[in-house]
Amino acid sequence: MKTIVVDAMGADLGLEPVVEGVIRSLKIKDFIINLVGDSAQINPLLEKISSDYKKRIIVTHADSFIKMDESASNAIRRCDSSIYIGIDILRDNKADAIVSAGHSGATMSLATLRLGRVDGISRPAICTLMPTTKSTPSLILDAGANTDCKSEYLVDFALMGYEYAKEVLGITNPKVGLLANGEEDNKGNELTKEAFALLKNESYFIGNVEGGDIFNGSVDVIVCDGFIGNIVLKTSEGVAKTIALILKSEIKKSNIFIKLAAFILKGVFGALKLKTDYAEYGGAPLLGINKVVIISHGKSNARAIECAIYQALKAIDGDVCGKIKEAFAK
Amino acid sequence: MKTIVVDAMGADLGLEPVVEGVIRSLKIKDFIINLVGDSAQINPLLEKISSDYKKRIIVTHADSFIKMDESASNAIRRCDSSIYIGIDILRDNKADAIVSAGHSGATMSLATLRLGRVDGISRPAICTLMPTTKSTPSLILDAGANTDCKSEYLVDFALMGYEYAKEVLGITNPKVGLLANGEEDNKGNELTKEAFALLKNESYFIGNVEGGDIFNGSVDVIVCDGFIGNIVLKTSEGVAKTIALILKSEIKKSNIFIKLAAFILKGVFGALKLKTDYAEYGGAPLLGINKVVIISHGKSNARAIECAIYQALKAIDGDVCGKIKEAFAK
Repeated sequence: MKTIVVDAMGADLGLEPVVEGVIRSLKIKDFIINLVGDSAQINPLLEKISSDYKKRIIVTHADSFIKMDESASNAIRRCDSSIYIGIDILRDNKADAIVSAGHSGATMSLATLRLGRVDGISRPAICTLMPTTKSTPSLILDAGANTDCKSEYLVDFALMGYEYAKEVLGITNPKVGLLANGEEDNKGNELTKEAFALLKNESYFIGNVEGGDIFNGSVDVIVCDGFIGNIVLKTSEGVAKTIALILKSEIKKSNIFIKLAAFILKGVFGALKLKTDYAEYGGAPLLGINKVVIISHGKSNARAIECAIYQALKAIDGDVCGKIKEAFAK
Repeated sequence: MKTIVVDAMGADLGLEPVVEGVIRSLKIKDFIINLVGDSAQINPLLEKISSDYKKRIIVTHADSFIKMDESASNAIRRCDSSIYIGIDILRDNKADAIVSAGHSGATMSLATLRLGRVDGISRPAICTLMPTTKSTPSLILDAGANTDCKSEYLVDFALMGYEYAKEVLGITNPKVGLLANGEEDNKGNELTKEAFALLKNESYFIGNVEGGDIFNGSVDVIVCDGFIGNIVLKTSEGVAKTIALILKSEIKKSNIFIKLAAFILKGVFGALKLKTDYAEYGGAPLLGINKVVIISHGKSNARAIECAIYQALKAIDGDVCGKIKEAFAK
């Protein structure tokens, strides 16, 4: 049976939502979870659940964990930490994937150093799913792993994103674009112009795309450096949050009819929230590593952890690591 | 009396919204407009307006204009174009500001070459106003004039944005931040880390800011290179558009009560639209030039042109060019 390691430690909201997400996912799908962390804190949270689920949970004790304010470079020396032990369970081939909402820098460096990069890949990239007006999300990579990039990194991100969109999201012939300051071929900065020249003959490459294209379904995979990817993600979250805040404050200062109407529209707002809620998209896969690694938002709630686990299961089913390996072997 | 040149030509929606915006602004404020473009097309649009306004409109004929698909580098040789003639009216000190919704690259190169950069400024920057949850907007610069930047450009953008926020938006002690992939001092890419070191002792500099901070009122001036600025603007527009589309489609497939409730909420949605509508913010000033230059959106409607003209008037009243000159003379 498939086994997924879940790092129970280091998330902003503590262990509870992580364990709750694990339990929810076990009720829906048949697989084994290896929960790594402080067993004295984990075990009490598992006491009340039925034995059907409990028997599919292994608890692996870890004495410590990497705190959010620690430097990622410490992680490699901290072999008693939950993420170190979790990653090494994958290294020993005793599990197929890992999900962590802890220190993302630590997860990235340990995954790269202990699990290794796929041969031929210059840098692993964080791949984030974005809502679109279509039925399938779009992918942005790199969403933050590599701040300063060379053009060959972007070329690797393009191929990895293509494979992920095809094998995990099930998109036939995914379209890959370079994020730039205009759609025209001559647009871009020095970095993206170089990458454009390297990508232009790939059948999946559709050219430059703009910020708005991330959401309109015209492109499936959006390639950029990790500095811009991070800014784009946080800007998008910021706009959505601001719109919700302005709407709420306008409704608050309105009359009772408006308030009633807003109440009736609750379902519609709920559908919007569902469509744009990061939790529904799970975590962000770290692509280019030999095993499936899912980096969850530090502030993940139980639903986000649950969805990240489904995402890990899909990545295993689609053998995305194998497919990326094949693609880079060519 | 103050005179503002308005380029009547080259906008995506033709002359009508430009002329309509001009007329609206003349009804509200007392100043003179010099409309530059094809007089055979402009004059019929002015026929029906009352003589009170008409006497404050000068029409300057131009034989041609720079089309959106032309190269900006052509602009300098096309001395019969509306933007060339318009810019030269400022050069001859016969007007105080120019507003154009035509080819923005042409406006930028002609403004730089014919009006000149303020002494000591490395590069002019486009400065765009963004909605926030506070009562004052925030500023992003550079929003697209300079694709690849050096750190000293970013330092100049910071000071220009500070002066604009203070003198035109009336913000006391504007806070200036560097757009980066995290708030911590050690975050950033090579470019922003260099700029951080150069800015860190400035009293107005608050350090690194993230994408979400653009809208939450925690910073007034957001500094980035023009490649990222363009992506941030288009991403923000894209998110807002997508949210509106999802809401509309959810309401469309709902029952009559939901539709009625949505109708009752029209005013609230209208208030939101007003708060996030680019038209209300006018155009984007090109800072670092010796005169006031406002670049309007190619798709500007009459309201956007009207607001861009008010913005030009405020920039003249605040003597923002003089203030920037003083700041860089130090």
